[in-house]
Amino acid sequence: MSEVRTLKVALLGCGNVGAQVARILLDDADALAARSGARLELSGIAVRNLDSERDVELPRELFTTDADTLVKDADLVIELMGGIEPARSLILTAMQNGACVVTGNKALLAQDGPTLYEEADKAGVQLSYEAAVAGAIPILRPIRDSLSGDRITRVLGIVNGTTNFILDQMDSTGAQFADALAEAQRLGYAEADPTADVEGYDAAAKAAILASLSFHTRFALEDVYCEGITKVSAADIAAAKEAGFVIKLLAIAEKINNAKDGGGEGVSVRVHPTLLPREHPLAAVRGAFNAVFIEAENAGELMFYGQGAGGTPTASAVLGDLVSAARRVVLGGPGRTETTTGYVPALSINASTTSYYIGLDVADQAGVLARITHIFAEHGVSIEIMRQTIHRDAASRVESAELKIVTHRASEAALAATVEAIKGLDVINSVTSVLRVEGV
Amino acid sequence: MSEVRTLKVALLGCGNVGAQVARILLDDADALAARSGARLELSGIAVRNLDSERDVELPRELFTTDADTLVKDADLVIELMGGIEPARSLILTAMQNGACVVTGNKALLAQDGPTLYEEADKAGVQLSYEAAVAGAIPILRPIRDSLSGDRITRVLGIVNGTTNFILDQMDSTGAQFADALAEAQRLGYAEADPTADVEGYDAAAKAAILASLSFHTRFALEDVYCEGITKVSAADIAAAKEAGFVIKLLAIAEKINNAKDGGGEGVSVRVHPTLLPREHPLAAVRGAFNAVFIEAENAGELMFYGQGAGGTPTASAVLGDLVSAARRVVLGGPGRTETTTGYVPALSINASTTSYYIGLDVADQAGVLARITHIFAEHGVSIEIMRQTIHRDAASRVESAELKIVTHRASEAALAATVEAIKGLDVINSVTSVLRVEGV
Repeated sequence: MSEVRTLKVALLGCGNVGAQVARILLDDADALAARSGARLELSGIAVRNLDSERDVELPRELFTTDADTLVKDADLVIELMGGIEPARSLILTAMQNGACVVTGNKALLAQDGPTLYEEADKAGVQLSYEAAVAGAIPILRPIRDSLSGDRITRVLGIVNGTTNFILDQMDSTGAQFADALAEAQRLGYAEADPTADVEGYDAAAKAAILASLSFHTRFALEDVYCEGITKVSAADIAAAKEAGFVIKLLAIAEKINNAKDGGGEGVSVRVHPTLLPREHPLAAVRGAFNAVFIEAENAGELMFYGQGAGGTPTASAVLGDLVSAARRVVLGGPGRTETTTGYVPALSINASTTSYYIGLDVADQAGVLARITHIFAEHGVSIEIMRQTIHRDAASRVESAELKIVTHRASEAALAATVEAIKGLDVINSVTSVLRVEGV
Repeated sequence: MSEVRTLKVALLGCGNVGAQVARILLDDADALAARSGARLELSGIAVRNLDSERDVELPRELFTTDADTLVKDADLVIELMGGIEPARSLILTAMQNGACVVTGNKALLAQDGPTLYEEADKAGVQLSYEAAVAGAIPILRPIRDSLSGDRITRVLGIVNGTTNFILDQMDSTGAQFADALAEAQRLGYAEADPTADVEGYDAAAKAAILASLSFHTRFALEDVYCEGITKVSAADIAAAKEAGFVIKLLAIAEKINNAKDGGGEGVSVRVHPTLLPREHPLAAVRGAFNAVFIEAENAGELMFYGQGAGGTPTASAVLGDLVSAARRVVLGGPGRTETTTGYVPALSINASTTSYYIGLDVADQAGVLARITHIFAEHGVSIEIMRQTIHRDAASRVESAELKIVTHRASEAALAATVEAIKGLDVINSVTSVLRVEGV
């Protein structure tokens, strides 16, 4: 038998995921060597504070605060520090030194991906980041490789477990957002500062990555329209439920051709609370699970489902990338990280079209429906379903009237103008919900 | 810009899938070139009969009956003829000539995979076969690459759309097997000779491929225990439904450690009708769709869902493999098709353990339950749930009594012995169902 080569693996960061990656590298060394064709030797773990508590007991001598030296001496570098700097500089140094890099840093990729991809191409090394989107679910490799002979037309993803858990709680218990968030924090599903999750920023970074791979074009964070779940009320959830929908925070990337309306062709990348029919495969994705639903011209509908977060599941994705990179090093040949040959423009949210659910609190007067439908027609927004519910008091006097409208696909711009005009009607007490709908 | 290389692509076979592959190669040439880094030129289509009707209009001059010459002049060969010969010889010739091969030939892979893998390794070419299992669903590449740093413990797959459609029909309409099969034939979901599907042979070939990749060990068709759906009755389906289960034909590969019972460690690979709880993610896979559910030590539960058959969806998988192979050729470096480093033995069906559902038609006599439970205990099979239903006539006389039992996990051998012993009891009129259960 030929001598087995050893590849030095530098680990940057030892949080939730990093600690599990280190554990598996040490515990499963033989299996990983058999699959890689090389022994993967954990040469060190760079941390900010040597004395921090870790989730896993790891040999003290592996730890260092000198990330720079560790990186320069490694064949493979795993970056799990998060944040922009020093992660960005360390990754660039690693690649310039000929090391393949595995990262789970979605914020960095969404903000400064192109710099990293270009450096990887120039250095002929592999840059992989399966862990950056949807935790343990193999989704980036299938999009990049398995679907490379197809044309993806739309991606819908539940890619943030925290918000999915909160919406799920609201749906099953009727809780308000604040209470469901508190419950998520108590159970450890939401952080003390939940902003990145509940405002949709985490999902937006993942949407940019999914869109870039799916449409062979570089999309950055600023191309993503982002709306979180903080304004979703218990009343919205109840109304959706009654109408046969569930509300999910979706990361959406879809090809849109507005040519017939005088607009251009492009990709709309967006994150917002979305109504989905309860029978849609994504509607059944509960709690902290993630799933990505893909529509492609030839493949049709595909769905990928699994755990979207957690140290051990995410470590699985990191190690898959690491073994693949190691194989590549052993077998020779450069890595290839992306193909940006599509050059489709990112469209503003105003150019995207979707169906809408609109809830209105209206005066019960003759002619109200006619006035409202007239405004929809004026703005070119077609109504699919309209339902009026009259609430009466004990003496059968009308207390209030609710109007629920689901539109056909319309542009954001047309819808916004419609809602603005309706708000100006004297017969409208309030617009109670405006929610986007997918999957119908 | 550097000159773009052209790679010659030979297509063998022009059926349902082949015709779509040819169409996409011709229609999407520019996009495929951009993603591959080389122009993929369809150099010819080998068919048995030049005058056969095709699903798609294709240039007449591409067709040839001389597969051998076509293959010898190709950089990339797509084999979609099916069957063992001449497919096997043509693939070997192609690889010996340095061509990468893409095939969807599950029967050949399950029967003679090792010969093909060895030849690919020797020739340093890539052999890919994503289309062989679960049509359009990217499943083999995620198992091989994305999960290469994890340990898969179990794979449960709905990998045959014909049988899933039939079982789904039986479940939703109460039809008997024969009627549901006739309906599937009428709609084109089942062939005139449905043997390969309904007897489970097609699923068994796929199970062998899934097990080989998941457990890094070569499993052949003869390692797979195979039981089709022809004996599943409307009564079985109804009983399952009443108990909260759905019956699916599953391809199962799971790691089993019988060491504590004096047995060995190994992998059980099997195909059989299986009860699944209705809330299991696989239970919702309807009609002709496929899905593969994977359990891995670190990743936890994953599911991959999509269209399992059909010309266009399957062509998507073929083209994904083709583009990946072309990239490899352009970038240089050998392909790698499998890692058989696990060397775990295939276990006989008798060594596998699962839960069972057993339906009994019993005499309504005092002491019957005691005698039956005694037999289970004697054979070391533990009962999880037992429910007796007494049917009475108009005069309240007992007409019959039904006993439904769900066991804890037990070995096939112990279960078979238990059922044999129960059949011998004079208080048993008949054993109405014995069905395996997963996902509880």
